[in-house]
Amino acid sequence: MATVKLLADTELSAEARAVFDDIRAVRGTEYVNNFWRALAHDPALLRATWERLKVVMAPGALDPLVKEMVYLAVSVANGCEYCIHSHTAAARAKGMTEAQHGELLAVIGMASTTNAHVSALGVPVDAAFEADTPSAER
Amino acid sequence: MATVKLLADTELSAEARAVFDDIRAVRGTEYVNNFWRALAHDPALLRATWERLKVVMAPGALDPLVKEMVYLAVSVANGCEYCIHSHTAAARAKGMTEAQHGELLAVIGMASTTNAHVSALGVPVDAAFEADTPSAER
Amino acid sequence: MATVKLLADTELSAEARAVFDDIRAVRGTEYVNNFWRALAHDPALLRATWERLKVVMAPGALDPLVKEMVYLAVSVANGCEYCIHSHTAAARAKGMTEAQHGELLAVIGMASTTNAHVSALGVPVDAAFEADTPSAER
Amino acid sequence: MATVKLLADTELSAEARAVFDDIRAVRGTEYVNNFWRALAHDPALLRATWERLKVVMAPGALDPLVKEMVYLAVSVANGCEYCIHSHTAAARAKGMTEAQHGELLAVIGMASTTNAHVSALGVPVDAAFEADTPSAER
Amino acid sequence: MATVKLLADTELSAEARAVFDDIRAVRGTEYVNNFWRALAHDPALLRATWERLKVVMAPGALDPLVKEMVYLAVSVANGCEYCIHSHTAAARAKGMTEAQHGELLAVIGMASTTNAHVSALGVPVDAAFEADTPSAER
Amino acid sequence: MATVKLLADTELSAEARAVFDDIRAVRGTEYVNNFWRALAHDPALLRATWERLKVVMAPGALDPLVKEMVYLAVSVANGCEYCIHSHTAAARAKGMTEAQHGELLAVIGMASTTNAHVSALGVPVDAAFEADTPSAER
Repeated sequence: MATVKLLADTELSAEARAVFDDIRAVRGTEYVNNFWRALAHDPALLRATWERLKVVMAPGALDPLVKEMVYLAVSVANGCEYCIHSHTAAARAKGMTEAQHGELLAVIGMASTTNAHVSALGVPVDAAFEADTPSAER
Repeated sequence: MATVKLLADTELSAEARAVFDDIRAVRGTEYVNNFWRALAHDPALLRATWERLKVVMAPGALDPLVKEMVYLAVSVANGCEYCIHSHTAAARAKGMTEAQHGELLAVIGMASTTNAHVSALGVPVDAAFEADTPSAER
Repeated sequence: MATVKLLADTELSAEARAVFDDIRAVRGTEYVNNFWRALAHDPALLRATWERLKVVMAPGALDPLVKEMVYLAVSVANGCEYCIHSHTAAARAKGMTEAQHGELLAVIGMASTTNAHVSALGVPVDAAFEADTPSAER
Repeated sequence: MATVKLLADTELSAEARAVFDDIRAVRGTEYVNNFWRALAHDPALLRATWERLKVVMAPGALDPLVKEMVYLAVSVANGCEYCIHSHTAAARAKGMTEAQHGELLAVIGMASTTNAHVSALGVPVDAAFEADTPSAER
Repeated sequence: MATVKLLADTELSAEARAVFDDIRAVRGTEYVNNFWRALAHDPALLRATWERLKVVMAPGALDPLVKEMVYLAVSVANGCEYCIHSHTAAARAKGMTEAQHGELLAVIGMASTTNAHVSALGVPVDAAFEADTPSAER
Repeated sequence: MATVKLLADTELSAEARAVFDDIRAVRGTEYVNNFWRALAHDPALLRATWERLKVVMAPGALDPLVKEMVYLAVSVANGCEYCIHSHTAAARAKGMTEAQHGELLAVIGMASTTNAHVSALGVPVDAAFEADTPSAER
């Protein structure tokens, strides 16, 4: 039930093919998942998405597993079924244990409840939580 | 602009007062933020929320800072302004650096984009991402 | 912080004025809240919204207070601050007690949590919950 | 997996049948899609939805293809799979090219990212973006 | 398409089994739906969710059918397909008529539209809708 | 009420300053709005966001005003107040008339309602709306 046909390797444009080659090289696997096969209809969007993803998900100040769990949390909040499946799989591949998965779900659930309570109550932001007053210029 | 009056300490019921006492003891500060002052109108809901929060956010398989960042990510996806402010402050109090904050925002942004792309394309879940077939009983 | 100027009575077009007259007559008060003053820039949209609202919120199979609470629940889930304030006020005007308000928040919070858990787990719909198989034609 | 049985033509009430007749006449096709067959359980809601849709989606200050793309963008942001499929099909039927589809997705993705960044940062609205100060009356 | 295997009765831990026994006893049926079978991987989360659900959905200031309809409204706003199916079924089991279902959908639809209009217009909250000014302490 | 201090020109790093210079050059105005001043804490994220925005919002298969209206529609669906204000202003600067604004709001409102109806009814996607069956490889 996609809105575009998922492209097989033989259906790729040269530009899309080059991105697929890089995905395979970076991930060390021949498998390219459906998301990229759908995006491949627009090689420019495919490339921009993949290039940005490599930068954002690379190890840095946060470790890759933490990044995957944050990615998953956003996907759950947005109700994106595909994303939830792919990033749960990715988090497991990066070492997420069942205990960590359970705690992650508990935190996401807790945040969802208190987000709703806060909205319903219209709670004003405490002055203590605000960053410094904006500077005068602007 | 709250939908209920935020309760001052002198306006609390005995049951709400007891919860505030525990909040202060657990957090080691006299300061009780507006969320709890709004919830205090319903002492049973106040207690249930606080008791659950203590369990969920306690150190476990995930460390408390990771939990705060996940909480923040969900709050951003839900657009809860108060929650974003309070959990950004909490994450900083637990050691989140500016570099980590920046990467966290980048991951949340990346997930938001690909969530939207996946939805727009109606990408079907790869069989590779599915857990085992549900068992026969049920 | 509106994206349009809120119109005062003296700034209304004749068509918008007629809708305001009806709002005042139906509600039995001179007060017309900001939502209508913002919509008044587009008299056709103003009229369509008001006419539909009268039909939808009228007493019927569901009583008006239940409708207000459902309206409020949707507004909380969507994080619409103005809507939350206006429909909390409307629900109170229709008799919502503080105890009912507290239970309403608890249900909204519970639903928010389990919605998140269900999404995170990708739970497939039980056959028991599905309506009859769609008929052959179509 | 619907929560109501989709009604076949032979199962329609007289009132629902009349709406279906109008849908067929306006669209110039015998095909009536599942949305209307689900709504047909409540002929009053069916009629109100169809009558409003005709007005809103008619050519006006915005051309019909632009309206379809806006409709699709909202459906993506809300994660409504059915709506995404039906309005992607409708946009194509109204002339959306593959290049336009790709740019549409890129804009939706960009907006999703910056919406998230703005929320995470709690950016205050620039005075330059505000409409005139609300008038004194009110 | 779940992210975890749904557990059969024979696969439950002792702690999960005890929760299932309580679900069966409270609901008066042997049937335990998929949500609980997915949550059963984390017995602590399973128990916490079930215990809270019993409290929140019990008869109180709001009757159980009203609570189910509110639960359903939130699930629709969040686009949680499973939740919509399970709580539509639950509402019907508690007596929701087809006419009530139709009105519920109409209210949810109305709220969705006006939530969007209010957001697009950036309507400021009327002073009349605000609760008392927060007390000085804090 | 930002979670970071908005940076004045004198507080920018050299890298952020270079991005601000480009924003000013491309837009032909000295004014740099708050979003960029908040992002400026993370020059890499600032640059990536600005560079991508230039590409995505440039004239192409869709004209810039249509892109702004789509951006606004997504921002409304996501309830991002700042984004709604900035993109309403941008759309007006690109020629959006009051009549177009009104129709845009009507389409967004209509989509919001039918998205909710579709979700509540769990309407299955018509076969007619699906793209070709995915190719065999994959």
